[in-house]
Amino acid sequence: MLSFTMEEYQDRLRKTKQRMEASGIEVLLLTDPANMNYLTGYDGWSFYVHQLVVVIIDEAQPLWIGRSQDANGARHTAWLHHDHIISYPEEYVQSLSKHPMDFVAQFLTEIGQGNRVVGVEMDQYYFTASCYQHLKQHLPLGHLKDATNLVNWVRLIKSDQEIEYMRRAARIVERSMQAGMDAIQIGVRECDVAATIYQTQISGTEEYGGDYPAIVPLLPSGIKTSSPHLTWTDGTYKQGETVILEIAGCYKRYHCPLARTLVVGQPDPHISELSKIVIEGLNETLEATKPGMTCGEVEAVWRKSIARHGLDKESRLGYAMGLNYPPDWGEHTASLRRGDTTVLQENMTFHVIPGMWFDHFGVEISESIRLTKSGCETFAEFPRELVCKQPDIHTAS
Amino acid sequence: MLSFTMEEYQDRLRKTKQRMEASGIEVLLLTDPANMNYLTGYDGWSFYVHQLVVVIIDEAQPLWIGRSQDANGARHTAWLHHDHIISYPEEYVQSLSKHPMDFVAQFLTEIGQGNRVVGVEMDQYYFTASCYQHLKQHLPLGHLKDATNLVNWVRLIKSDQEIEYMRRAARIVERSMQAGMDAIQIGVRECDVAATIYQTQISGTEEYGGDYPAIVPLLPSGIKTSSPHLTWTDGTYKQGETVILEIAGCYKRYHCPLARTLVVGQPDPHISELSKIVIEGLNETLEATKPGMTCGEVEAVWRKSIARHGLDKESRLGYAMGLNYPPDWGEHTASLRRGDTTVLQENMTFHVIPGMWFDHFGVEISESIRLTKSGCETFAEFPRELVCKQPDIHTAS
Repeated sequence: MLSFTMEEYQDRLRKTKQRMEASGIEVLLLTDPANMNYLTGYDGWSFYVHQLVVVIIDEAQPLWIGRSQDANGARHTAWLHHDHIISYPEEYVQSLSKHPMDFVAQFLTEIGQGNRVVGVEMDQYYFTASCYQHLKQHLPLGHLKDATNLVNWVRLIKSDQEIEYMRRAARIVERSMQAGMDAIQIGVRECDVAATIYQTQISGTEEYGGDYPAIVPLLPSGIKTSSPHLTWTDGTYKQGETVILEIAGCYKRYHCPLARTLVVGQPDPHISELSKIVIEGLNETLEATKPGMTCGEVEAVWRKSIARHGLDKESRLGYAMGLNYPPDWGEHTASLRRGDTTVLQENMTFHVIPGMWFDHFGVEISESIRLTKSGCETFAEFPRELVCKQPDIHTAS
Repeated sequence: MLSFTMEEYQDRLRKTKQRMEASGIEVLLLTDPANMNYLTGYDGWSFYVHQLVVVIIDEAQPLWIGRSQDANGARHTAWLHHDHIISYPEEYVQSLSKHPMDFVAQFLTEIGQGNRVVGVEMDQYYFTASCYQHLKQHLPLGHLKDATNLVNWVRLIKSDQEIEYMRRAARIVERSMQAGMDAIQIGVRECDVAATIYQTQISGTEEYGGDYPAIVPLLPSGIKTSSPHLTWTDGTYKQGETVILEIAGCYKRYHCPLARTLVVGQPDPHISELSKIVIEGLNETLEATKPGMTCGEVEAVWRKSIARHGLDKESRLGYAMGLNYPPDWGEHTASLRRGDTTVLQENMTFHVIPGMWFDHFGVEISESIRLTKSGCETFAEFPRELVCKQPDIHTAS
């Protein structure tokens, strides 16, 4: 039932402990669901209540601590021995008087870990300000140290099995993108296109099913393409409208994101011109990208390319990605942007997303890539072009 | 384009300011995307970066502060004047050296609000420990006060328009539940059932489209029904297997959750027996529930009912819900559990979910309800029974 071999989980744990040692952390509390899954295999939609995985530097197995009704879920999905699955009583759930981190602090103290240096993911969605305060207050010495992204950095270089899962996600995103584009037509509702994309993402292929991506289909149309993170409405597509589709395939929590831009009918000259510049810049960037370069150097190739056309892009060109849970498929480690000195290595994986947004329109055409020995390759194979969809005379009439 | 009238947004703001005044809070920072949407209409999948809505007690309009590429999304979806939409530069995004809350603290100081008492949602997913530390450090006086759930409590009683949206969500969940049940059959993959449910949830009805629910379809089967929050696999359904379906319809971010239990073929006697007890308890509870009772009193009706059969349920019986974003459709205010003294009033809305989980199986049969003048009514109309699905001889052969 596990997605990876025990050797792979042990290897991840070993690398995590090396980083803990280097940071002077003896007990690591992981609240990021992706990090929990990465080290133990735990997979459930229970991150809406407080839960964590505890890595103790001199103990062989991590501990899972969560809500009592989710403990069976941990028993079914994680490789941990059942005595390493600890649950807190229901009265701690969304309570005004009891906080789960009080339970955690007391538990760590009882097992003799309360006086050690405890690492916490200070800037992680599910580690709230209250979590921090309650731990600080209830651990005997309150030795808390910032361990934000400690495990995320271990995740940066993917194993062959992880790459295989991302390739499956790529097959799913190719189908989902095609299904979405096929469905868009004058008079069709945006929600029906989103529904078709979802159906394809989750159904997957004949050989393997899809998992839920960490981000819902982003489908801005018309003037709303001026901003990347709007979803859909139940309005219908109009003649001449631009549509951005940013979606991912997901397999066993591993993602392959992909963005394309489509016009229903003939594109406005601004859109075709901008698309050409974006594709040229993306092509030149992918051609140049190889191990040994820094993330900043990759972005410089892009920047130089679009500067020839008098353009500039303030936001980053891309980010590391792979395993994740809502609300983000990005890994929060390396970013393709000025000043990022991360050196590229084989099997790092990025979403290269040269989105350009202006006040009244935008264009996104992206690729998910893997660093190879001597360059990079895309996960998905999907035409890298602005799609101009001819109005269907039957529905448009 | 707004989902509610300006009067309704103003009324929400007025109630929020009353609570701020009662708590001694002069400037309220809201990071909960549901609270941001509730007060301003802002709707985008941008909560994976730091963003907030600021309510200043003596200012007419709130401020939206977020990432620069999302500012156009705020202009398109929120009712705020454009000079109330403030964006921080891209270099603050997932950066190791710059935190968006440094920008926020500096901005509040510049507009003369830095010395006031600032309320923050201490135990809200998107208000991390780092957010707290950066604000504390960079606000001149660092007067921070816990305002967790302050606006959530304003959301507790729904307006007629909100109830109407939840009724639309109910029509969507009825269809989605039926579509899921129709699709389950021996030999069918779980992912294909999830895909069908998604398709129906998002497509909605002929009159209105669906929005993405805050939680993905929860579809544990077989022994995994012993835990409520597992999703799906690409394995196939087997003869005699139990399947729990916990899903929601969603319209303009308003939810109607619903859970049912289905058996492929003949149920194990434990399952039929448990289902009868759950349905009897749920019926008795809904019959008794009315304004004036406390949440704890509602739970006592249920507890007494199942105690007749020698059963006990540790976890809460239900929770307030309505408007929300991932990862939870629950409102984090009133819970139907022992000791909750919230007094029920008309137009409060709850998900009453008497799930019972044992080591090898579980049953969930739930209803979403609205408190009426003299009792309560369910949003969805869906048979309240254990569904026994006869194997399809064509596919089972």
